[in-house]
Amino acid sequence: MPVNLPALDPAHLFPVPGVELGYACAGIKKPNRKDVLLFRLGAGATVAGVFTQNRFCAAPVILSKDHLSHGDIRALVINTGNANAGTGEKGLLDARAVCEAVASQLGVKSAQVLPFSTGVILEPLPVEKIFAGLPQAKADLKEDNWANAAEAIMTTDTQPKATSRRVVIAGQTITITGISKGAGMIRPNMATMLGFVAMDAAVPQAVLQELVGYAANRSFNRITIDGDTSTNDSFIMMASGRVQIPGFADTSSAEFQALRDAVTEVSTWLAQAIVRDGEGATKFISVQVEGGRDEAECAAVAYAIAHSPLVKTAFFASDPNLGRILAAIGYAGIGDLDVSKIDLYLDDVWVAKQGGRNPDYCEEDGQRVMKQSEITVRVLLNRGDARTTVWTCDFSYDYVRINADYRS
Amino acid sequence: MPVNLPALDPAHLFPVPGVELGYACAGIKKPNRKDVLLFRLGAGATVAGVFTQNRFCAAPVILSKDHLSHGDIRALVINTGNANAGTGEKGLLDARAVCEAVASQLGVKSAQVLPFSTGVILEPLPVEKIFAGLPQAKADLKEDNWANAAEAIMTTDTQPKATSRRVVIAGQTITITGISKGAGMIRPNMATMLGFVAMDAAVPQAVLQELVGYAANRSFNRITIDGDTSTNDSFIMMASGRVQIPGFADTSSAEFQALRDAVTEVSTWLAQAIVRDGEGATKFISVQVEGGRDEAECAAVAYAIAHSPLVKTAFFASDPNLGRILAAIGYAGIGDLDVSKIDLYLDDVWVAKQGGRNPDYCEEDGQRVMKQSEITVRVLLNRGDARTTVWTCDFSYDYVRINADYRS
Repeated sequence: MPVNLPALDPAHLFPVPGVELGYACAGIKKPNRKDVLLFRLGAGATVAGVFTQNRFCAAPVILSKDHLSHGDIRALVINTGNANAGTGEKGLLDARAVCEAVASQLGVKSAQVLPFSTGVILEPLPVEKIFAGLPQAKADLKEDNWANAAEAIMTTDTQPKATSRRVVIAGQTITITGISKGAGMIRPNMATMLGFVAMDAAVPQAVLQELVGYAANRSFNRITIDGDTSTNDSFIMMASGRVQIPGFADTSSAEFQALRDAVTEVSTWLAQAIVRDGEGATKFISVQVEGGRDEAECAAVAYAIAHSPLVKTAFFASDPNLGRILAAIGYAGIGDLDVSKIDLYLDDVWVAKQGGRNPDYCEEDGQRVMKQSEITVRVLLNRGDARTTVWTCDFSYDYVRINADYRS
Repeated sequence: MPVNLPALDPAHLFPVPGVELGYACAGIKKPNRKDVLLFRLGAGATVAGVFTQNRFCAAPVILSKDHLSHGDIRALVINTGNANAGTGEKGLLDARAVCEAVASQLGVKSAQVLPFSTGVILEPLPVEKIFAGLPQAKADLKEDNWANAAEAIMTTDTQPKATSRRVVIAGQTITITGISKGAGMIRPNMATMLGFVAMDAAVPQAVLQELVGYAANRSFNRITIDGDTSTNDSFIMMASGRVQIPGFADTSSAEFQALRDAVTEVSTWLAQAIVRDGEGATKFISVQVEGGRDEAECAAVAYAIAHSPLVKTAFFASDPNLGRILAAIGYAGIGDLDVSKIDLYLDDVWVAKQGGRNPDYCEEDGQRVMKQSEITVRVLLNRGDARTTVWTCDFSYDYVRINADYRS
């Protein structure tokens, strides 16, 4: 059961002019399951992306990065059921063959297609099945197809994840719609976190690359389930170019910043949806670290808390276990951290003051917050002005069950 | 149930001439439980130690470091049931008061006593109970008392941990005996990993400090249960000075190296015992990384594997899940790692070759190894001559149960 993740409502997913989507049931792993998705973009669209930092990056990631560097991307093809990772030279040839098949279907060049795969690793990509599914996906191409698209990229997700925003900038309406799948490096043989966000704005490629990095650092790069990262993680942003606003070419303009905020909001929703649907998750935890010297040290503290199995099992048990949180802060790797300056809150409850238990804290208050399905852990380092937030979930019996039972 | 940890046999614990031990049941947390331990050292003994890197280090750790810096240590006092951590100025005064009480009992100076505490944190140390227990501990002081000592430092350990070696160096017999308790940052409110190793050799303090660092880096610093580190972790080495061998003052001598190897063997046994008794552990895993450019990168890869909850649940499930291990290697943070050079073995089974599945590997072989209670994961980076080994355990339902149920 995802934590407060509303069911997908197709009526609230706005089509993005200039971006068509089509799916196929290609039987890659199971029959009658949406497992291939095509994006088609019109001429003049721009595309940018960020990818997994894992050194074992999958063949489609290598190829997508290469194709992106040439620009003028006109299509994306995503398959589930097989990650085409750990497949060596053969995997690269297979990914290229899929791009060629898509290119031939759509009348574009192979280098204008970005491939994505998610699913089991170390097994060859069933290219014939994908080839066979492409005509169905092509025939299905339409702008009002985001709900199907969200389903077509699911692997172990229990719910499709999609959201839309419309924002008026310089008198014109911009539509932003995105989909994601997770959950982190969860069931890594069926792994990969994917996010796709499209908008109808005209955004130069270099600016779009900056935008996707900015949004990723505040969304997909700020979530964690278990600290593991996958071989295929990708986050892609597409701008169809239909709505032209000069300010979008200038990252210091108010117009660009309004677009940036809206895009970041959509990306954050999609990233948080992955955590809400994390394996075995029963709680959604925001770890907010303030007063650091820079964002990096805030992130180090936030991740130390968010990754600690002891902290995460305490959340599962609704146990306001201060010792575990303080200890995690202590080993976050900040060499000159003065722990006697640290304050800690669970939502509005001030639990630790100057590095020790707040004398006014009573455990009932902490317990009340810990029983909630959404909790904010707020750490004040009191040594600077930087801050960051990381989102995670708790660590339950079900996490072990799901990950231990998988493949058996 | 610990993994292949033999029951303590007092007949195999050799007294160390010049090192006396005595315990008391001081009722710190529960009545009739051994919870205070004294070590008494004769004049001329040397002591050295390494301590937690956690910024939230406990009052006794601060004081022990300070007292060690003055040298001429004559006693150690250890209490369980309370960690005296997160207790601020009051905690320091309490730890000092305990040292003073021991000093007065034994007729030494307060600065010649090292204090250690382990147990619940953020609660004041019950100094009166410790004071009341000291006469009993003093009356119990004797050299042949290691089995009681091993019991007296237990908290959540399910078995006492102690071992002995005798080694003949330059024609003289050296006795080395040690005790430890764990398990890592397991149940961190009752936490702390402690290790005490004593020998009857005469070792200058500076050399002993080097020796404890060397042994720690190959033992207590190479184990991990869940990646968390405690506020009180300490590893102390004592040399009573009874057996004088000139070579022990020279770290390049064959005599010193023989002593170093024997001490490291005892330390490794004690450290591994903590993993074998890790919470919920059903398997003992050695992660051996070879062929790195330096030991640091070997350790980074080993810890990435040993900390991954996905890898650890796969061990629990006896699932030879290559993808999870390879992915962990990939995100270990080695920027220029060429994954196409990596080989991976599970014991003698060659599972991954040049970064992909070994064509000759069959899953039955991997499965056979994964079902064992002791497993060696061997990673060949094939880019240098450095190597290291880290020991860990699997991640079971019981880990979540123990850590979620604690305090409830």
